[in-house]
Amino acid sequence: MGKVLEKEAFGLATKDESGVLSPFRFSRRETGEKDVRFKVLFCGICHTDLSMAKNIWGFTTYPLVPGHEIVGVVTEVGAKVTKFNAGDKVGVGYMSSSCRSCDSCSDGQENYCPKMILTSGAKYYDDTMTHGGYSDHMVCEEDYIIRIPENLPLDAAAPLLCAGVTVYSPIKYHGLDKPGMHIGVVGLGGLGHVAVKFAKAMGTKVTVISTSESKKDEAINHLGADAFLVSRDPEQMKDAMETMDGIIDTVSATHPLLPLLGLLRYKGILVMVGAPEKPLELPVMPLIFGRKMVVGSMIGGIKETQDMMDLAGKHSITADIELISADYVSTAMERLEKADVRYRFVIDVGNTLKPAP
Amino acid sequence: MGKVLEKEAFGLATKDESGVLSPFRFSRRETGEKDVRFKVLFCGICHTDLSMAKNIWGFTTYPLVPGHEIVGVVTEVGAKVTKFNAGDKVGVGYMSSSCRSCDSCSDGQENYCPKMILTSGAKYYDDTMTHGGYSDHMVCEEDYIIRIPENLPLDAAAPLLCAGVTVYSPIKYHGLDKPGMHIGVVGLGGLGHVAVKFAKAMGTKVTVISTSESKKDEAINHLGADAFLVSRDPEQMKDAMETMDGIIDTVSATHPLLPLLGLLRYKGILVMVGAPEKPLELPVMPLIFGRKMVVGSMIGGIKETQDMMDLAGKHSITADIELISADYVSTAMERLEKADVRYRFVIDVGNTLKPAP
Repeated sequence: MGKVLEKEAFGLATKDESGVLSPFRFSRRETGEKDVRFKVLFCGICHTDLSMAKNIWGFTTYPLVPGHEIVGVVTEVGAKVTKFNAGDKVGVGYMSSSCRSCDSCSDGQENYCPKMILTSGAKYYDDTMTHGGYSDHMVCEEDYIIRIPENLPLDAAAPLLCAGVTVYSPIKYHGLDKPGMHIGVVGLGGLGHVAVKFAKAMGTKVTVISTSESKKDEAINHLGADAFLVSRDPEQMKDAMETMDGIIDTVSATHPLLPLLGLLRYKGILVMVGAPEKPLELPVMPLIFGRKMVVGSMIGGIKETQDMMDLAGKHSITADIELISADYVSTAMERLEKADVRYRFVIDVGNTLKPAP
Repeated sequence: MGKVLEKEAFGLATKDESGVLSPFRFSRRETGEKDVRFKVLFCGICHTDLSMAKNIWGFTTYPLVPGHEIVGVVTEVGAKVTKFNAGDKVGVGYMSSSCRSCDSCSDGQENYCPKMILTSGAKYYDDTMTHGGYSDHMVCEEDYIIRIPENLPLDAAAPLLCAGVTVYSPIKYHGLDKPGMHIGVVGLGGLGHVAVKFAKAMGTKVTVISTSESKKDEAINHLGADAFLVSRDPEQMKDAMETMDGIIDTVSATHPLLPLLGLLRYKGILVMVGAPEKPLELPVMPLIFGRKMVVGSMIGGIKETQDMMDLAGKHSITADIELISADYVSTAMERLEKADVRYRFVIDVGNTLKPAP
């Protein structure tokens, strides 16, 4: 691959708040001495891609190439790269770089680095914008590259890079990974369904908490949850009071926390990964009476992400996906907006993304 | 002291929701083989006493003898008591017994035992009501008795049994006691003023956070805080953003959490010990972006309480008190309702409580 080709890239970008994606030519930096360049084979569609494409949070810079659940095969490595070689199966999540010197970086929690650089729609050190994985190839510092275990299918492994580590990180960090513990999972979407799989792999008892009975069969018979709790059924909720060590709450809509706090045991932890836009109501007494905690968590550090991926390899954990072609992405975005997906769209970038004419 | 005298007790009780206290004769159990009996010398007035006296939470049983910051001198010990002798200076906090077998009890966190028995206004194992320290003497299982260090004045040590351990426990439990850490204290009342003293004794930097400048001199020059932050001053708040490892929030009125979450560093912990009646607004994004936590905490376990008292002895930490006589308690309650106290009323029970005629 010659120098000029290495710098030219193409992908799908949204150019305004309509969120509509169209072909886009841009350039990526040459392979630096610590960089890994890889051909993108698959990229997951995270709900954040949709929010960023439509500028829901007000800080999107256009044109935006979304995508931060990116897997592919290494095509070139820089002179000082030691961990990867051409041909390796690798991935990049939502974080492409960080300062390497702050408290968070020193802790291996680069995801909380104030200077952390997002893989898509962020300003890189050289003032260029980062562009995500809805594109033909990526270039990234080797320290932010994740190795994909040989036994995992690359398409279904892609969503683990964001959805997977987002639920894995708080489970590990807060010590909720001990066999015999009881973990609740609220919301059975992209995050929730892998939360069930990881928590089961760690040996905990997993209960899916949902507003209706409709997902019970799926949760228990397909995903392997041990129990299913309908949050609108007072009897069921009463029976489950103070039984859970932790709850992973993936719901981004406004919802009541009081019933969830009631499900927690003494010292129990409610982990918020959903990010509701508006503040939620926090009843303080239930926190006080049981030394309970409400905590937030956002993706994971690089070592955590690799650990998560290795655990996924060991237990053959992948996301349940619907593989789509590049020309279906706008339709997929519309369906995602209606939660019409089971559980993650993944774009077959390698086979279907065609350069703009 | 003969058997009959040992069982008869007298104190001050409130008989209805007026909260007015009047003389009250009752009986306490004989000294069991694991019991310690002590003459009450001093008892602090906690805000909870006021809430219970007036049945604010709706579960008060009358007549109620309040008081759970109780110190005195041992008069008699049961045959199997090993840790205390007549003449010892001791105290009892808000917890008089617990099940000794649940998870919390096994952790030394008897304060979260579902069967924990409060020192005042609760049902004991024998179905009698417990009566607190606004009374001439106490009897309590030795495992729930705290030793008061010789060097501490008993009157000013009394409030440590509730206010002291309530702030000490979360600081220790959440690892906020490391020298060099930066701790914020919100609200400079009974809890807040001892939080400043303990956090300073642990070697942390302490900043008092208040809505107005009025307590600045007191916080810094009298209590020894390192800094003072006016929460209504946007410039001051901005300068202090993301500088604190933990915040002890002692405010029980409704108040915004967003500015406090902003003051916390990555991994920072907001500890709620105030117990606002109504739910507070919890913005979730700031939790997620910094792996921040909101936690509750309620008094402390027995070992924690003794550790706290020993640390108080080592650093000569006591509460700032206004010593009052037993006939002033109703007036003190009225003043407490208006927050007109600096910082804790303590009743001189030993010298001023007279038996009803």
